[in-house]
Amino acid sequence: MTTIHLITPVTTRGIRDLKEIAHLESPSLSFTHSLLDRGPSSIESEFDEALAVPDTIVRAIEAEQAGADAIIIDCMGDPGLKAAREVVKIPVLGPSETSMHLAAMLGQKFSVVTVLNSVKPMLANLARVYGVYEKLASILVVDIPVLELEQRFAEVQSALANSALQAVERDGADVIVLGCTGFLGCAAAIEEHLQSAGHDIPVIDPIPATVCVAEAVAKAGLRHSKRTYATPRAKEIIGFNIPRTAV
Amino acid sequence: MTTIHLITPVTTRGIRDLKEIAHLESPSLSFTHSLLDRGPSSIESEFDEALAVPDTIVRAIEAEQAGADAIIIDCMGDPGLKAAREVVKIPVLGPSETSMHLAAMLGQKFSVVTVLNSVKPMLANLARVYGVYEKLASILVVDIPVLELEQRFAEVQSALANSALQAVERDGADVIVLGCTGFLGCAAAIEEHLQSAGHDIPVIDPIPATVCVAEAVAKAGLRHSKRTYATPRAKEIIGFNIPRTAV
Amino acid sequence: MTTIHLITPVTTRGIRDLKEIAHLESPSLSFTHSLLDRGPSSIESEFDEALAVPDTIVRAIEAEQAGADAIIIDCMGDPGLKAAREVVKIPVLGPSETSMHLAAMLGQKFSVVTVLNSVKPMLANLARVYGVYEKLASILVVDIPVLELEQRFAEVQSALANSALQAVERDGADVIVLGCTGFLGCAAAIEEHLQSAGHDIPVIDPIPATVCVAEAVAKAGLRHSKRTYATPRAKEIIGFNIPRTAV
Amino acid sequence: MTTIHLITPVTTRGIRDLKEIAHLESPSLSFTHSLLDRGPSSIESEFDEALAVPDTIVRAIEAEQAGADAIIIDCMGDPGLKAAREVVKIPVLGPSETSMHLAAMLGQKFSVVTVLNSVKPMLANLARVYGVYEKLASILVVDIPVLELEQRFAEVQSALANSALQAVERDGADVIVLGCTGFLGCAAAIEEHLQSAGHDIPVIDPIPATVCVAEAVAKAGLRHSKRTYATPRAKEIIGFNIPRTAV
Amino acid sequence: MTTIHLITPVTTRGIRDLKEIAHLESPSLSFTHSLLDRGPSSIESEFDEALAVPDTIVRAIEAEQAGADAIIIDCMGDPGLKAAREVVKIPVLGPSETSMHLAAMLGQKFSVVTVLNSVKPMLANLARVYGVYEKLASILVVDIPVLELEQRFAEVQSALANSALQAVERDGADVIVLGCTGFLGCAAAIEEHLQSAGHDIPVIDPIPATVCVAEAVAKAGLRHSKRTYATPRAKEIIGFNIPRTAV
Amino acid sequence: MTTIHLITPVTTRGIRDLKEIAHLESPSLSFTHSLLDRGPSSIESEFDEALAVPDTIVRAIEAEQAGADAIIIDCMGDPGLKAAREVVKIPVLGPSETSMHLAAMLGQKFSVVTVLNSVKPMLANLARVYGVYEKLASILVVDIPVLELEQRFAEVQSALANSALQAVERDGADVIVLGCTGFLGCAAAIEEHLQSAGHDIPVIDPIPATVCVAEAVAKAGLRHSKRTYATPRAKEIIGFNIPRTAV
Repeated sequence: MTTIHLITPVTTRGIRDLKEIAHLESPSLSFTHSLLDRGPSSIESEFDEALAVPDTIVRAIEAEQAGADAIIIDCMGDPGLKAAREVVKIPVLGPSETSMHLAAMLGQKFSVVTVLNSVKPMLANLARVYGVYEKLASILVVDIPVLELEQRFAEVQSALANSALQAVERDGADVIVLGCTGFLGCAAAIEEHLQSAGHDIPVIDPIPATVCVAEAVAKAGLRHSKRTYATPRAKEIIGFNIPRTAV
Repeated sequence: MTTIHLITPVTTRGIRDLKEIAHLESPSLSFTHSLLDRGPSSIESEFDEALAVPDTIVRAIEAEQAGADAIIIDCMGDPGLKAAREVVKIPVLGPSETSMHLAAMLGQKFSVVTVLNSVKPMLANLARVYGVYEKLASILVVDIPVLELEQRFAEVQSALANSALQAVERDGADVIVLGCTGFLGCAAAIEEHLQSAGHDIPVIDPIPATVCVAEAVAKAGLRHSKRTYATPRAKEIIGFNIPRTAV
Repeated sequence: MTTIHLITPVTTRGIRDLKEIAHLESPSLSFTHSLLDRGPSSIESEFDEALAVPDTIVRAIEAEQAGADAIIIDCMGDPGLKAAREVVKIPVLGPSETSMHLAAMLGQKFSVVTVLNSVKPMLANLARVYGVYEKLASILVVDIPVLELEQRFAEVQSALANSALQAVERDGADVIVLGCTGFLGCAAAIEEHLQSAGHDIPVIDPIPATVCVAEAVAKAGLRHSKRTYATPRAKEIIGFNIPRTAV
Repeated sequence: MTTIHLITPVTTRGIRDLKEIAHLESPSLSFTHSLLDRGPSSIESEFDEALAVPDTIVRAIEAEQAGADAIIIDCMGDPGLKAAREVVKIPVLGPSETSMHLAAMLGQKFSVVTVLNSVKPMLANLARVYGVYEKLASILVVDIPVLELEQRFAEVQSALANSALQAVERDGADVIVLGCTGFLGCAAAIEEHLQSAGHDIPVIDPIPATVCVAEAVAKAGLRHSKRTYATPRAKEIIGFNIPRTAV
Repeated sequence: MTTIHLITPVTTRGIRDLKEIAHLESPSLSFTHSLLDRGPSSIESEFDEALAVPDTIVRAIEAEQAGADAIIIDCMGDPGLKAAREVVKIPVLGPSETSMHLAAMLGQKFSVVTVLNSVKPMLANLARVYGVYEKLASILVVDIPVLELEQRFAEVQSALANSALQAVERDGADVIVLGCTGFLGCAAAIEEHLQSAGHDIPVIDPIPATVCVAEAVAKAGLRHSKRTYATPRAKEIIGFNIPRTAV
Repeated sequence: MTTIHLITPVTTRGIRDLKEIAHLESPSLSFTHSLLDRGPSSIESEFDEALAVPDTIVRAIEAEQAGADAIIIDCMGDPGLKAAREVVKIPVLGPSETSMHLAAMLGQKFSVVTVLNSVKPMLANLARVYGVYEKLASILVVDIPVLELEQRFAEVQSALANSALQAVERDGADVIVLGCTGFLGCAAAIEEHLQSAGHDIPVIDPIPATVCVAEAVAKAGLRHSKRTYATPRAKEIIGFNIPRTAV
C-alpha cells in the first residue's frame, strides 16, 4: 500500500478537492492532503512562493513522520522541492520537474501554458535547473489569476485550447504541459481541440501525471540523492516551528 | 489491468527471465515478453543495434495488436525506440531514456556504468538527443561483454561497485544508472557499497524502473506525440515482413 | 586514383543516376554505386531508415572489399553512418553530417529545407549529435514526398526557393542546406532566387558537396576514429547475411 | 549620496561588522545594515535558505522605504534575490550573481571555493540560472561550517589558499570567487599564495566587489527589469507581517 | 582618485565629446581620452575592427604608462579588448562585454539594438565568447551608419524606440542594450517609450554603464586574469610602433 | 585548375616551405604563397594576432586579384579569417575552423595539442565561435615557442606524442588536432605512437587537411555567406594601404 501525501502550498481552504484525483486511487494507492497554515492564498510570483516554502517544509516533515511513502508539492513552481528533499528521505516530487521530464520523453519539444506572465521567468529558470531548457519551445499564458480559475472556467478552457494550438503551430511544440496545477482536469478538452486541428499531441495534466510517477518511484524503491540533498546540519533557528526530529 | 510487453532485442533464448521482474506484477499489472527471430545475440555496438531494430519494430507492432498497453525495449541502447513509436500508438519506453530522466530528477548529476567502451559513444549520443547531456557526469565500464555477465557475476558485481564509487568520488555523480539491462538485480549491492563509503545515493536499475514508469504513463493516459513520431507513409518495402495493418 | 562508392540506401531502381555527379569525375576520381536489395523504396521516417540500415551496412562492407577509398551514404538521414564506420576502415561520410559542418563553416546560422514534416525531428537530432545544433536556424519543408520529387519538379523548385527565402528573411539563415539528396541539382536556381531578393547566400547541394569532401578526406589520409567507432566484437547473428570477413 | 543597505540574512547578531567594509565608504557612499528576526543562524543548505527568505524580503521592503539606493543580500546563496526584486524598485544585488558575472569578465573560467559540500548543488544551480554555467570550472570546499569560520581563521585561510591553487592547476580556473561572504577579507592572502606559485590571478571577495558594483549600478541609473521581476499581485497572506505598502 | 582612459578606436576627430559623460565625473573620478592615428573612421565590420586594433593597443599601453587606473574601449565590437589586456595590467573594459553581463544580471533575456546588419554576426559571436549567448533574445538594427547618427538624430531615436519595443513584445527581451556607443544619451527616451507601452524595462547605455563598472572594478582592486591574458613573449615585430616597455 | 593561396601571417622569411605540401599538388591544384611585410615574427598571443591581421587582409585582397581560387591563412589562430571573408568573394579557410569541424566529423570528442599556454584561451574561444565547443575534450601544450619548433624538432615530436596520448587516455579524445601549423609533418609519428599504445585514432595535420578541404570547397562551387560576411562599406581609412578596388 502506497500513501502519497499532497501538499497544496497555499492557505486557501477548499482550493484542492481530492475527488479530482480519486480515480487514481486503488487498493494499493491512497492519498492524504494538507494545506498551509501560513503563506499566500495563491502562488503567482517568486514572492508568493518564498512565503509558501517554510510551511511546505513543515508539511513535508509531518507527512514523512505520519508514514507517507511519497510527497507531491501541488504547485508548478515546485516551491520548497529542494529544501523538502533535504529534510525527508521519502521521495518528494514537484509537478513541474516531473511534467517537464515526462514531456521531454514523449516528444521533441514541449510548451508550457500557464496563468500569468509573472510566472514565466520562474518556469524558464526551473527548466534550466532541471536540465531540459533545450527542450522547451515556449511558455504561454491564459492571463487569468489562479483564484479566478474556478469561476471563469469556460474562459480558462478556451484560452488554454487556443494557447496550446498556438504553441504547436507557431512555436513547434510536440507536447503541451499545463503550467498551473489549478488547470487539473482540463487536459482532455485541449487534446480534443488540438486533434480537431489535426495535431495528435499529448497534454500533460501535472498532478495526475505526477501522482502516477510518484507511485512508480515509490514502487521502484527509488529516492532522491542525499549527495545532492544533504540533511541540513543542526543549528539554531528562530521563529519557525520546524518539527524537532527533522534536522 | 495494464499489460506491459517487454521486447528483449536479441536472439539469445533465455537471456531474460521474467521472474526477475515478477515482484513488480500485481492484480493490475502483468507482463508479456518476446525476443527477436533475426538479429544479434547481444548488443554492444551501433552495428549490433542496427541489426536488432527491424525485428524490434515487428515485435512492437505485434504487441500492440495483441493488446499490450505499453512496450519496453529491453536494452540500454534503446534500439528502435523512435521507429517503434512511429508504428504504434501505445507508449513505447526505452530504459536508457527513462533512466536518464529519472536520474536527472533524483539528483544533480548522474553517471552511467556500462559493459564495454564500445557503447560509450552511443550512450553519450542518447544523452544528447534526450536533452540531459548537461546532467551526465561520466560513463564508466566494467569491461565485461554482455554474454559473459551471467557466468562472471561476482566479477561484475565487484566491478560495478568500484566503478560506481569512482563515478561518485572522482566524477561527482549524485545518482548512478546501470548502463546495461543485463545488470538487472545488481542495484542493491551497489547502493550498499556506496553507503558503506558514506554515500547515500540511488542506483537506478533500468528495467524495474522503466516498468514502473511505463505503468505510470499508461495509468496517466499519456502517450508519445504523433507530431514527433508521425505514422510512416505507406510505401513499398522489400525483404522485411512488417505486419500489414501497421503502416 | 580515388574511388568513391555511393550507397543509395533504398530499393528504388533508377532513383539515382550517376550522370548527375559525372561533372565531378576526373582522372583522379571515379564513382561506383549500389542500391539496397532489401529495405524501403524511400526514406521519410525513422521506420524507413531503420529498414534501410542492415543492407546499407552490407553495401559498405562490400565496397571496402571491392577497393573503394571512401563511402557516401546517399540520404540526408545518414542511415547506418555510425554502424558502417564500425565495420569498415575507409572513410564513410553522411551528406547530412558533412553539409551541416560545411554550412557551419560558411556562415553563422544555417537552415535545412527538406521534404516532409516527418523528417524534421530526425534532422534536429542529427544536428544535436553532430554538435552543430546551436548553428541550426530552422528546418523547413516543401511538403512533397521523395518519390514524387521527380515528376513534380517545377513545384519542388518553386517550393524550395520560397522556403529558402523564408529561412533567410524570417529565421535568419546565412546558409541553406538542401535537406534531401533527391534535391540534387536544385541549388543553383535557389541561389539565384535568393540573389534576386538581395541575399548572397550559399546553398549546399549535399551530394556534390559530400563527394568533394570525401575526396578531400581520402587525399588528406584521414579516416574516422576507431575509438569512437570500434570494430564490433564477433558474435552470432541470425538472419542477415553480413559478409564474413567484416566483423 | 548613495546608501547601500546590506541585509545579512541570518539571525546571528554580530556576524557582520560594517567595519570590514568601512574602507569602501566615502562622502558619496554610506552603508546601513540589518539582520533577520526570524530565520537560521547560518545558511548552509536549501532548507536554511528557505527559512531566511521571508524576513529578507521584509528587510528589503523596509530598506527601500527608509530611502536606500540599493540593497545587497549578504550570502552567496543569494537568498530571496528574485523575490526582493519583485517587491522593490531599487536595485537588489546578490554577491553570487555579481561575483560570477565579474569573474566571467575577468578571465575565461572561474572556480568557486566555498564552505561545505552541501552548498555545491545550490551554487551550481545559481550558475545555471545566471547563464554563466559554461564559465564555471569547478566548485571546491574548505569543509568548515560558517559559524566556525571566525574561530578557525588560520585553518580557513590555509584551506582557501590550497583549494584555490587546486582550482587553478587541476581545474583550469583563471579567476577565483570566494564562495561564502564569511570569507570577507581573505582574498589578498590567497592572491599572494597563487602569485608565489606563479599564477597572477584575481580573487573576488564577494561583498566588497558587490558593494562596488551596486554603487556603479545606482550611479548609472540602472535597476532590474520589472518584466522579469513584476510586482506581485495583492492577495491575502497569512502569518507573515509584510509591510503594507509593498505589494 | 581614479582616472579612466577612454579609447575611441576610430580616427574621426570630434566623434566623442567627453562632455557627454561629464556628469559621471567627481572629485574621485576623472577621464582622459584618445583617438586613433591610424585606422578606420568608424567601425561597422570585422574589417574595420581589424584595422582599429593595432593603434588601440598602442593607446592602451600609453594610457597605462600615463597612470590611468582603467581603460575603456569605446566601441561595441570591443576591438582589441583581449590584446590590450595582454599588454597592460590595469583593467580594460569593453562596453559590449560589460553591458551584456549587466543585462544578464538585470533581467532574464536581453536584446541588443545596433546600427547595421553587418555587425550582427560580430555581436552574436561576442555573446558566445562572453558566455551569455543563452541570455540573448535578439539583435535588431536601426539601419543607419555610424557616421550618420549625429545628423539623423531624430530618425535614430525613433528607430531605436521602435526596435526596442519590438525586441520586448516580439522577442521577449527583458532588458535592452544599446548596440553602438554612438547611441550615447538615447537611453532615457527609449525607456520612456517602452514605459508608455506598459513595459518597465532598463535600457543600458553602454558607455556610462561601463564607466561606472570600470570605476567599481578599480575601487574593488580587481583586474583581469593574467592566466587568461598572459603578457606576450618578446619577439621581433615589423612595422607597428609598439611602445618599448610594453612587451 | 585550382590555385590555393597560402598566407603565412608572420614576417619570418623561410618559416614556411611549400615543399612541405608539394605532395598535394597535381595537374589540377597549385599553390601560391605570401608572408607579411608588417606584423609579428610568430603568433602566440592575441596581441601577436592583432598585429598580423591588417597585412593578412591585404594579402587576401591581392590573392583574389591575382586569380586565386581559395585562400588559406596559415596559423591556428585563424587570424583575419572573418575580416578577409568580408573583403573577398573566394573561399577563405582557417586551419583551426576546418580542422575542428573535420575532427567533429571523424570522432566524438577531439583534443588540440598546441605550443604554449598563452594560446589556449584563444583556441577555446574559436571553438565556441565555430560552434564545436561541446566536442572539445581538452587543449594541451608542448610548451615550446613557435620559433624554436624547428631546432628542437625531436623534443617537439616527443612532447606531441606524449600530450596526444594523455589527451586520449585522460581526457577521452577520439581525434587529435595539431594546434599549430608549425607542427606540419608531425601527424604520422603521433598516430604511430598512439597506435602502439592501442589507440587507432586520426591525427589532423591542419595545413594538409585544410588544403584538401579548400580544394573541395572550390570544386563544389561553395563560398562563404555574404549575409554573415558582408562587404565593408566604403569609408576613410588612415594608415593602411588597402588595395583600392577591395572595399
